[in-house]
Amino acid sequence: MSVEAAKRAAARAAVAAHFSPSYTYVGIGSGTTIIYVHDLPPHHTIHFVPTGYQSRQVILKAGLTPTLFDHLPDAVVLDVAFDGADEVDEELNCIKGGGACLFQEKLVAERARRFVCVADYRKSQPRLLTSWPTIPIEVAPIAVSPVLRSLKALGSPDPIVRPGALDKSGPLKTDQDFFIIDAPFPTLLTTKDVSAGAKGDGSDGKWEVQALSRAIKAITGVLEVGLFAGSDGDEIAAKGGKAGGQKPVAVYFGMEDGSVVKRTQGGDEKLA
Amino acid sequence: MSVEAAKRAAARAAVAAHFSPSYTYVGIGSGTTIIYVHDLPPHHTIHFVPTGYQSRQVILKAGLTPTLFDHLPDAVVLDVAFDGADEVDEELNCIKGGGACLFQEKLVAERARRFVCVADYRKSQPRLLTSWPTIPIEVAPIAVSPVLRSLKALGSPDPIVRPGALDKSGPLKTDQDFFIIDAPFPTLLTTKDVSAGAKGDGSDGKWEVQALSRAIKAITGVLEVGLFAGSDGDEIAAKGGKAGGQKPVAVYFGMEDGSVVKRTQGGDEKLA
Amino acid sequence: MSVEAAKRAAARAAVAAHFSPSYTYVGIGSGTTIIYVHDLPPHHTIHFVPTGYQSRQVILKAGLTPTLFDHLPDAVVLDVAFDGADEVDEELNCIKGGGACLFQEKLVAERARRFVCVADYRKSQPRLLTSWPTIPIEVAPIAVSPVLRSLKALGSPDPIVRPGALDKSGPLKTDQDFFIIDAPFPTLLTTKDVSAGAKGDGSDGKWEVQALSRAIKAITGVLEVGLFAGSDGDEIAAKGGKAGGQKPVAVYFGMEDGSVVKRTQGGDEKLA
Amino acid sequence: MSVEAAKRAAARAAVAAHFSPSYTYVGIGSGTTIIYVHDLPPHHTIHFVPTGYQSRQVILKAGLTPTLFDHLPDAVVLDVAFDGADEVDEELNCIKGGGACLFQEKLVAERARRFVCVADYRKSQPRLLTSWPTIPIEVAPIAVSPVLRSLKALGSPDPIVRPGALDKSGPLKTDQDFFIIDAPFPTLLTTKDVSAGAKGDGSDGKWEVQALSRAIKAITGVLEVGLFAGSDGDEIAAKGGKAGGQKPVAVYFGMEDGSVVKRTQGGDEKLA
Repeated sequence: MSVEAAKRAAARAAVAAHFSPSYTYVGIGSGTTIIYVHDLPPHHTIHFVPTGYQSRQVILKAGLTPTLFDHLPDAVVLDVAFDGADEVDEELNCIKGGGACLFQEKLVAERARRFVCVADYRKSQPRLLTSWPTIPIEVAPIAVSPVLRSLKALGSPDPIVRPGALDKSGPLKTDQDFFIIDAPFPTLLTTKDVSAGAKGDGSDGKWEVQALSRAIKAITGVLEVGLFAGSDGDEIAAKGGKAGGQKPVAVYFGMEDGSVVKRTQGGDEKLA
Repeated sequence: MSVEAAKRAAARAAVAAHFSPSYTYVGIGSGTTIIYVHDLPPHHTIHFVPTGYQSRQVILKAGLTPTLFDHLPDAVVLDVAFDGADEVDEELNCIKGGGACLFQEKLVAERARRFVCVADYRKSQPRLLTSWPTIPIEVAPIAVSPVLRSLKALGSPDPIVRPGALDKSGPLKTDQDFFIIDAPFPTLLTTKDVSAGAKGDGSDGKWEVQALSRAIKAITGVLEVGLFAGSDGDEIAAKGGKAGGQKPVAVYFGMEDGSVVKRTQGGDEKLA
Repeated sequence: MSVEAAKRAAARAAVAAHFSPSYTYVGIGSGTTIIYVHDLPPHHTIHFVPTGYQSRQVILKAGLTPTLFDHLPDAVVLDVAFDGADEVDEELNCIKGGGACLFQEKLVAERARRFVCVADYRKSQPRLLTSWPTIPIEVAPIAVSPVLRSLKALGSPDPIVRPGALDKSGPLKTDQDFFIIDAPFPTLLTTKDVSAGAKGDGSDGKWEVQALSRAIKAITGVLEVGLFAGSDGDEIAAKGGKAGGQKPVAVYFGMEDGSVVKRTQGGDEKLA
Repeated sequence: MSVEAAKRAAARAAVAAHFSPSYTYVGIGSGTTIIYVHDLPPHHTIHFVPTGYQSRQVILKAGLTPTLFDHLPDAVVLDVAFDGADEVDEELNCIKGGGACLFQEKLVAERARRFVCVADYRKSQPRLLTSWPTIPIEVAPIAVSPVLRSLKALGSPDPIVRPGALDKSGPLKTDQDFFIIDAPFPTLLTTKDVSAGAKGDGSDGKWEVQALSRAIKAITGVLEVGLFAGSDGDEIAAKGGKAGGQKPVAVYFGMEDGSVVKRTQGGDEKLA
C-alpha cells in the first residue's frame, strides 16, 4: 500500500471520528491533511480556519471561504482542528514545521477543543528525533546569530538557517516574514523516561520534550518552536488562557498494510 | 534641577565610568541616552550598534556610521551597551519598552560584556510596577486575541494593544512589524521577597520579576517581554549562549539635587 | 448642522442610491463611511471587503464577516464600493490617504463596478490641494531618501515622512509595513484647465492631476499615490485589466444646511 | 572557455576600467559580480553598498563592512555600481531580477554616477526576451490577482507568481516581503525599431522596452519592474531627482573565445 493511500485512510478515519457537519469552526492544517476539505461534502455554514498561506489557498480553491485566525471573535474556540505531523512519539508529542507553518499551526491547535493529527506509518516513532532529523524553530531575522549560539549552548550540534528558493533571495521566510532554523538534537526523552530516572534537563546532553521546548522558546529572538508537547498540568490552559494544550488528543496513522492505527493517551488501537 | 539636567548628569557619569575610546563595539539605546553619542568626541573607529530605527537615525545624524546588530560577526561581543529604562527596582531588574524597541534592546543588552542603564530619579523604585503602570510585550499581530487571554489568565487585569498614530492605521508597529501589548500587573516581587517567604509564582496573584518574565515569554505568540531580569544562574549565559544576562551591571540615576546615584548589586552609592 | 450630521446625511443618500441587498460583494472603506455597515440591516449573504486593518476591525465588531481582498476569486468584481475622501475637485478627482490606507483603498476602488464617495462640505473644492495640504504617497522604507529627492525634483517644496505614534518607534507604518510621505504641491489643474491652455506637465510648476499621479507612481520606491484620478481613456481598464478607473462615479457631500449635494460627471445636483 | 571563466574575465575588465581605490561609495550587486569584492585588495575606507540580503552576506563574509542603502547620507551619490544582468539588448536595456533583488538593484543603479554591468556571452542579445523568457515584477502580495489580470491586458500570455522553496510556505518573498511575478511578453522593441516605424505602444502586441516598463510600473500593486531602461530624456534625472537613469553606461560580456566585449552607446568593442 502506498504512502498516499495510507495517508488517505488515516484522514478518513480521523474525519469519521472527529468531524460533525454541525460544527461551526474547524481548523485545517497544511499539507496532505487538506484532503479532508475535499472529501467532505460542502458545508457552507462552517468556518474553516487555515494555518497559513498555503492552507488558505487550498481552502479558497475548494470553493470554501477561509476564516482567518485573527478574524475569530475573542470568545470562539474551534470545535476541532486537523493537521499533519512530521514525527509523533509514544506520548503524542509531535514535531511539526517541515512546512514552515509551525507558529500558526500551534495557535490553531491551542485554540481547538480537540486537536487531531493524521500521518503515515513513517511518522510513528517511540521517541522524537528518531527518524526526523531536526526541530524547526521560527526566529526573528535580526536575531539569527545569537539564537544559533544559544541553541549550540543547549546541545544542538549544528543548527542551520533554512535556505530559500534561490541563493540570491536569502533564507526561506515564514508567513510572519521570519526565518526558520532547523536544529538537530540527540533523540528526545519522554516523561516516562524521566519517571524512570533520566534527568531530561539537558545537563547530560539529553532533553525531555517539553523541557527542551520551553528552553528554546525562552531564547531571546525565538518566536516559536516546532515541538508540540505538554501535559495535563499546562498552566495557561488550566487558567483559561487557551482551550487546550499543544498535544493532539488523537493521532491517526495510516499503516503499510492498509489499516489505521489510532494513538491516544490510552495507547495504540488498530482500526478495521 | 530639571529632569533633563538630571538625565544629563547621569549620562555623563555612566560614560565616564564605562566608556573607553579604545572600544570597538558599543551599543547605543534609544531615547535620552543618545546624548552619549553627541557628548563623546568623534570616534570613527568605533562601531555603534543601534537598538532600532530611531536609535539608528540619531547615530546617522551625528555623522557616525551605525553597525547593525545583524551585521556583527558571529563571535563579536559588545564592549559595553548603554540604554535607558522606564523603571528599575532594588535588584536592578528593569522595565523597558515604553519606546517600543524592547526586543532589539534586549538583544543588544544580552550581547554586551557590560550593560549600563541611565535614568532619572523618577525611575528608581523599590519594586517594579510601582510608578510605571504596565509591562510592554511584543506580539505577533495574528496572535493578539489569545495572548490577551493568556495574560489575563496570568493575572493582568486589563492588557491592551498599544494604538498607532492614527485610528485608521491600526496599532503601533515595532521594527519587526509586530504589535505591543501593555499589560498591567500587581507590583512585582524581588528574589529577596521570595527568600523572605513570598511564593512569587503567580499562585497568589503575586509574581517575582523573572518568574513572570518567563511565564509571559512562554506564551504562544509572544516574541519578547519588556522585563529585563535574571540572575547569576542564567542557564544560556552560563553555557556560553550569550555574553551576559539581561540585567544591567550598573544603573546611574540623575537625582533632583543634581547628584548622581549609582546602583549595583552591592547597593546604592551617591557620586559627587 | 454639525459635520457629523452632514456626513451621516450624505452616507444615507449614497446608500439609498447605490446599495442593494441583492449584492454579493461590497467594498467598505475606512473612517466615517463605516457608518454604512451599521445603518444597513444585517445582510449575512454579502461579502464585505475591507480596505485595511481598521476597516476590517469595524466590520468584525459589527458582527459581520470581512472577506479579504486577496481571498476574492479571480473573476469577482465588487458590485459597489463606498469610501470617504479628503478632497474632491470639480472633475471628481480625489485625494485620499489621510488615514494611511490609500493603497488598499485604490485596489478596492479599481475592482468595483461602481465606486462611490461620501464626504462633508469641507472636502468639496474646485481644485485639489486647495484646502487639503498634501498628497499622501506610500513608499518602501529603504527608498525614502531618493523618493524625497525625486518629489522635490517634481516640484514639491517640502515633502516629509509621516511620523508614528512615538518618536522612538519611527515613522507610521501602513498595512504593507511601508511608510507614508506627505508631499505638498501647488494647487492642481484639471483636464478642463489643460483644454483651456494650461500645460499641466509640471514644466511651469503646475501639474494636472493625472499627470502628477503618473509621474509620482513612476518613481522607483513608490508603491502608490493618494490621487484617485483618471479618465475614460484609462488603458488598463479599457483592456479589461480592471473593472473601472480610480475616480468615483458619484460623490455625496453632506452640506452645512442639512442637504446633500451629489456630484457626477454631469455636474452637481442638490438632493432634498 | 567555461561560462565561469568568461564571467571572471568580464568582471576583471570592468573593475580595471571603472574602479578606483580612491572611491568612497561603491555599489555591489548580487550573484557572480560579487567576485569583484574578492578580487579587489581590501579597501577599508570604501563603503560597499549591497543590493539585498545575499549581497550583504557576501560583503560581510569578505570581512568588509556593508553600508546599507538607507544609511547613506541624503546627498551621497555612489561613485560606481557594479551588477550582473539576465539579458542585455543592443541599446543597453537590461532585464534583471532572476535573483529577486530587482528593486534594490534599481535603487542602487539610479544612485550611481556610473552603473556598470557584467555578464557572459549568453546574456547578449539583439532584443530583450530573445533568450531570457520573462520579466520579473515585484508586487504587493495582496494585489497579485488584479496585477496578473492587468499584465494579461497588456499582452502577457501567462504571467505566474514565482514559487518559494516549499509548497507549504507560499511564494518566494523578496527583501521587502513582496512577491515576484514572472511575466512573458513577445520580444521587445528598441527605440531604433520605433524610429524605423514600429509603434511599440503595445497596440499591435509589441512593446518598446521603456514604454512597457512604464506601463507595468503604473499598475496598482506593482512596486518595481525588472526592466532597466531609459533614455537621455529621463525626466526625474534631468531635474536632479537621481544621479542617472537605469541603463548601464557600459556592459562587459565575457565571450566564449576568452575575449571580453565592451558594449556602450557607441557600440561594441572587442577588448584584448
